[in-house]
Amino acid sequence: MSDTVATAETDPMDSPFVRALISRIRADDMYGAWENKKDSALLREYIVTKEERRAIPMIGDPDPDTLSRVEHFYQAVGLAVEQVTGLMASPMMKMSHEGFGRVMLTSGKLVVYSKTLRDMHRFGFEDHAALAREGMKAVQAAVAAIEEFPEVARA
Amino acid sequence: MSDTVATAETDPMDSPFVRALISRIRADDMYGAWENKKDSALLREYIVTKEERRAIPMIGDPDPDTLSRVEHFYQAVGLAVEQVTGLMASPMMKMSHEGFGRVMLTSGKLVVYSKTLRDMHRFGFEDHAALAREGMKAVQAAVAAIEEFPEVARA
Repeated sequence: MSDTVATAETDPMDSPFVRALISRIRADDMYGAWENKKDSALLREYIVTKEERRAIPMIGDPDPDTLSRVEHFYQAVGLAVEQVTGLMASPMMKMSHEGFGRVMLTSGKLVVYSKTLRDMHRFGFEDHAALAREGMKAVQAAVAAIEEFPEVARA
Repeated sequence: MSDTVATAETDPMDSPFVRALISRIRADDMYGAWENKKDSALLREYIVTKEERRAIPMIGDPDPDTLSRVEHFYQAVGLAVEQVTGLMASPMMKMSHEGFGRVMLTSGKLVVYSKTLRDMHRFGFEDHAALAREGMKAVQAAVAAIEEFPEVARA
């Protein structure tokens, strides 16, 4: 595991995952409307406290905003994996019904990360540290898979 | 390559892919309404002649019937791969917009087949032989990937 990955625990805002997530969010800011917004303000949508979580109804399919928040999270995981390993990791996400779904990140012919998603309506984290921790956990799992099967990830 | 795969070319209706596709279609017949329908009649929806193809409009997203026809096709590829190799190959399909999409079949941590889908509105084949040929082409590509990286397919 490289140094970059190891520093994740020290400052959550400085982990490769959070930096990738911020770039991903800013990439949507085509007219510069968020230029003066702080990074932590941009991440606000990912913070869902216990109280907020309880208040979110779980009926029907999650709205497009929620879905793109989940998609950006896994795109950021992919970007961070690329920064660490030099190999592109692209996510494929599928929402099946009522907030259930699946996400898979692949590099070459290797599935570097795969997860069943549940309760997507409530996708979020208690605080910035939890967001960074969960993101880096996915990055580290993907990096470990690539280190195990490097020739498949390059196939 | 096993004998089962090699016989694909002789009788299209008897290839592992076409047999898997027929089982997949019959699995939806919960009330036995198609019991007296011949296999070739069940496959009729996959036959789209050049004239029919031209008549299908390409506006908007494909309807749910068309999408499930495409999904059944790749589920049958997965079933046939399992029959040949003993390893489950599960498809994940995502439609992005206007008939474009992507399908990926994975076994364990291996991407055994991946394809960008286009013009899904017109998904279909000139005749039964073409249907069997294209299905078996995907099966053979997946089986070859598993033979190349068996330990990843079992991971």
